[in-house]
Parts: sequence; C-alpha cells; structure tokens
Amino acid sequence: MSGALDAVRALPSWTDGATRDAIIDFVASVTEGPGAVPVEERVAVFDNDGTLWTEKPMPTQLHYIVGQWKVQAEADPSLAEKQPYKAAVTGDYGWLGAAIDKHYQGDDSDLQILIGALVGITAGMSVEDYAASVGEFYESAKHLALGRPYAEAIYAPMVELMRYLEAHGFTVYIVSGGERDFMRPMTQQYYGIPPEHVVGSALGLAWDADSGEVRYTAGLDFFDDGPEKPVRIWSRIGRRPLIAGGNSNGDLPMLEFARKGGGLALLVHHDDDSGRGDTPYDRGAEQALAAASDRGITVVSVARDWSRIFPDPVA
Amino acid sequence: MSGALDAVRALPSWTDGATRDAIIDFVASVTEGPGAVPVEERVAVFDNDGTLWTEKPMPTQLHYIVGQWKVQAEADPSLAEKQPYKAAVTGDYGWLGAAIDKHYQGDDSDLQILIGALVGITAGMSVEDYAASVGEFYESAKHLALGRPYAEAIYAPMVELMRYLEAHGFTVYIVSGGERDFMRPMTQQYYGIPPEHVVGSALGLAWDADSGEVRYTAGLDFFDDGPEKPVRIWSRIGRRPLIAGGNSNGDLPMLEFARKGGGLALLVHHDDDSGRGDTPYDRGAEQALAAASDRGITVVSVARDWSRIFPDPVA
Repeated sequence: MSGALDAVRALPSWTDGATRDAIIDFVASVTEGPGAVPVEERVAVFDNDGTLWTEKPMPTQLHYIVGQWKVQAEADPSLAEKQPYKAAVTGDYGWLGAAIDKHYQGDDSDLQILIGALVGITAGMSVEDYAASVGEFYESAKHLALGRPYAEAIYAPMVELMRYLEAHGFTVYIVSGGERDFMRPMTQQYYGIPPEHVVGSALGLAWDADSGEVRYTAGLDFFDDGPEKPVRIWSRIGRRPLIAGGNSNGDLPMLEFARKGGGLALLVHHDDDSGRGDTPYDRGAEQALAAASDRGITVVSVARDWSRIFPDPVA
Repeated sequence: MSGALDAVRALPSWTDGATRDAIIDFVASVTEGPGAVPVEERVAVFDNDGTLWTEKPMPTQLHYIVGQWKVQAEADPSLAEKQPYKAAVTGDYGWLGAAIDKHYQGDDSDLQILIGALVGITAGMSVEDYAASVGEFYESAKHLALGRPYAEAIYAPMVELMRYLEAHGFTVYIVSGGERDFMRPMTQQYYGIPPEHVVGSALGLAWDADSGEVRYTAGLDFFDDGPEKPVRIWSRIGRRPLIAGGNSNGDLPMLEFARKGGGLALLVHHDDDSGRGDTPYDRGAEQALAAASDRGITVVSVARDWSRIFPDPVA
C-alpha cells in the first residue's frame, strides 16, 4: 500500500477517484512483480495543445505567428490588406479562430493559408536562429485569456503525471500536432522534457553546406496529427507506447496504438470553464469522446479529476 | 593526469598516438572546467556501415535482403529470372556489389532497383513483424568473409569509444544511411544503443486502424545519406552534435555539421586489410579523405590507431 500512498503524494493536483486510481493501478501493473515491463520499454506519449497546456482561446504557436506577421506587415504594408496578415495587424483574430475550427470540422483550406504564411516566416532561416526567436517569444508573451506567462498556462496535474511516470522508469515524449521546433525551446523548462523527446509537425529542412547550418525550406514536411501520430511515434522511438494521452480527435490513433498493445489511453476532457476565453472546448473532441465510451479509453475530467489546473504563479 | 590515464584504460583497443590523444583532449576540453558543455548538449553521432561495423564484402542489410529474395523467388519462380532475385538465387552477388559501387560513383539506377525490391519485402508488413524477422536473421547469419556472427563483426575500438563518451555524459546516436528499422533490433545488444537513438533511412509507414498496427507502405520515405544526415539529426535530436564519426563521402555533411559548431569530426580510414574480402575499401571515401586533409577532420587510421579491430569471439 505504500506504493499507492506515494502515488497519491506524487499527484497532489489529482482528486481522489476512479481516474487517479486507474492511472495508479495501471502503473503498478506494468512496473511491479515478475511480469513488469522492462524499463526501456516504458514509453509514454502525450499530446501538447489541450493536453499539457491550454490551447484556447488561441494555440500558443498562432500567438507567436501573429506577432511575426505583424512585423512582416509593418515592413511590407501591402501584406496588411490580406489574411492572415490583416488579422495580425488589426487584432481581429476571428478569421484565425475560424480557420482552426474549420480544421477540426475536416476543412483544412484556411489552415493551409495559415501554414503557407507560417512557412514564410521561417523559409531560409537556420534552425538555431528560429529557436532563438521562439525563445524570445516565450520570455515575454502572456497567455491571451489568463494574462500570465505561458509557463504558467500549463496543466499542473499533467506535469505531476509525467514526473510520476518518470519515477516509475518511464520515458516521456511529447507527440503533438504543433510544430516540433516551436515546442522544443520551452519543453525542458515547462515540462522537464528535452528537445530530443519532442515529436511534432515538421517544416521542411535542408543542409546548407556553405554556412554549415540546417535551414528551413518553404514547405511543410508533415502534419503530425491523426493517423500520422502513430507513424511518427514509431519513426522516432521505435516502440509502441505503453501510455498515451490526448484531448482531441487527432489523438485517437495514438491512443489506439497504445491501447491495442495493452496500454493505457487517457483522454483529457475539458468540462471545466477555465482558461479558454469564450471558446467551447469540446469541439474537435467529439469522435474521441464517443470512442472513449465504446472502448477502454480513460476519460480525465478536468472538472472532476483535477483539484488544481494551472501551477501557482511565480511571485 | 588521472583523467588521461582513465581514458587510456577505457580505450584499450586504441594505440598510443595522435588520434587517441586528439579524442581524449577534445573530450576533456568540452567536459572539464567552467567552460564545460552542459551534459544535455553532449551529443555524439556515428555512422554505422563502415564506421561501427564492417560493410564489406556486402552490407549486412543486403545479406538479409538476399535471403528474403531467395525465399520470394522460391515461392514465385518467375522472379528468379530477373535481378536482383537472380543474384539471390544463384549466389552470384556481382550485380549487387556493382550496384553499391555505382551508388558511390553517383549513379543510383541499380540502387533504385534494389530499393524497389527491398520495399517489396516489407510492403504491408507491421513494424513489429519486421523487427521479429530481422531479429531472426541476426540470430543465425554469419558475416560472409569473417564467418562469424555479425555481433562479432563490429569494431571493438568504436564500441569502447561510445562507452567512453557516455562515461563523460554524452548521449550517442547512430546516424546511418542504412535502413533504420533493420538496425534497431541489434543496436542495443551489439552497441549498447537503444532503438530510439537510431537514425537511418526510412521506409514509408502508415497507420492501420483496423489492426492497430503501423505498417510499411510500398515506398521509401527518405535516404539518410549526404546532406540528409544533418537534416535528420536536427529532426530527431534538435541539437547540433558535438562529435560526429563516419567513414565515407556520405558522412561529410554530418561531420561538417559537428565541426562548424566547434565539434570533433572523426573519419575512419580503412587502410588495413582485414574483414573486407577482396573489395577495396577507400572507394566511396575519396572526397571525405580529401576534405579531411583540407579541414580539421581527424582521420582514424585502422592500421595505425587500432590495435584490435573486432571483439574476441565468444567461445
């Protein structure tokens, strides 16, 4: 029983209940006794946006992108007349939110425009210069609804869960639809996850022999969502995950990859009312929630299972 | 000086000389004192074929492939009339060796035929079934010139070097032109490198929701050689390597990626006469050797710098 008590102490932001018990029981089942899974095979994967930090009212990466577009439009005023630069300049982000919503409804037309303009920010830039630019953003930006740094817009219970899993021999990876190199500059500080454990969507890259730099091309390599997530997990890790956590339809294949190998699948359900502005949060998670009730996917209710959502602000 | 003595003891298959000194001095310079590189940034990358194990007279993966083609040709005799199945059935591997030689001379036409037939072996197969098939090969196959298991056709000095680097806080990755999932089933046992630290050429993958498996498509995703190596290093690791080691022209960009960041670049030069059958070994390394003398690339002479090449056979 001391193991269970230790687990409760390691997960102080989780409420006493079936969800926390399911996690603790599963971890015990794969880490204790003669049938324990070898340490090297204990892999856990988590989506980022909406799973490890809030993605409402606007995904963090869009916030960064908007700032870059504004700078571009100031340098070239003709850009300010067309989307998405117009949104960036006017501060009327409705078009952007609608583009994301359309994506979740299966229409990627505006998302493609977004991606095209995103690619225009980085084309020709070295990976190290981009990391520096993104790092500056994280230093100064504030979450649009919470008014606090993004470092304090992360989900404290999920950070506790990652530490708890590591304490039981797991290696934790982030597997996100978000762009990989936008996450890497913050994951160690925010989540304790190093850049080499960050899997995400990828901009095209090319080796520039003259400068000895790897630089972004003007293309997207792949969008790491839906059926691409298990593919990228295998490519990067070479193992089927034992635990997978997500919050939306795009996470379902990854959850199934874990579940069908006998693993634990967690679906964070945003049934609370914090940190999202006025945007409904279940949109884009309908299929995942429906699947959860049909299959053995463990739903994490934010309202019921978490006693604290965000970390306490640093004074 | 005790650090240097420890290093000598950790590298017993390396001879006393400038190359070993260069390695020991570089490792000391980046791991000791107030200017030491943080542990998490100590990344070393090594090519596999020709760098960590012998690739002559035939790359190990070709040996596996030939066996698979033979099985396919026995099931479908019409295949036996055409290459590369004919080579597999007759045991006349001249065509295969010539295809590889042509690749190193810049002509990939026969290599594409090889890849097409390779893809035919795995198309539709799950990644886990392929890993099992490859694992069986490693259990039984013998190196064609040495007549010993492939586990004993690896370069003992390089394994010592990887352990030495790990003892100094480095994380070691394999970055090979060879196919990633063909290496993964052996790298832990042979080299002490886990599958998540294996970077290589990639077959196409797709998620099969019905079975919950990741399966190979009939295509090649990318060939991890030449300028693709720094790109894949960044994609997988998100850091510029501090040490890079290779043995052929295709490793030059990766060596330059390390060197231009102030790192150590090692080029294994096969100037010995062991373990390669009758195939000259410098072919395919001409540019790299020429570049080494122009730039600060440290050449590792097999004849001069290694006192032992292969591990002692297990009795």
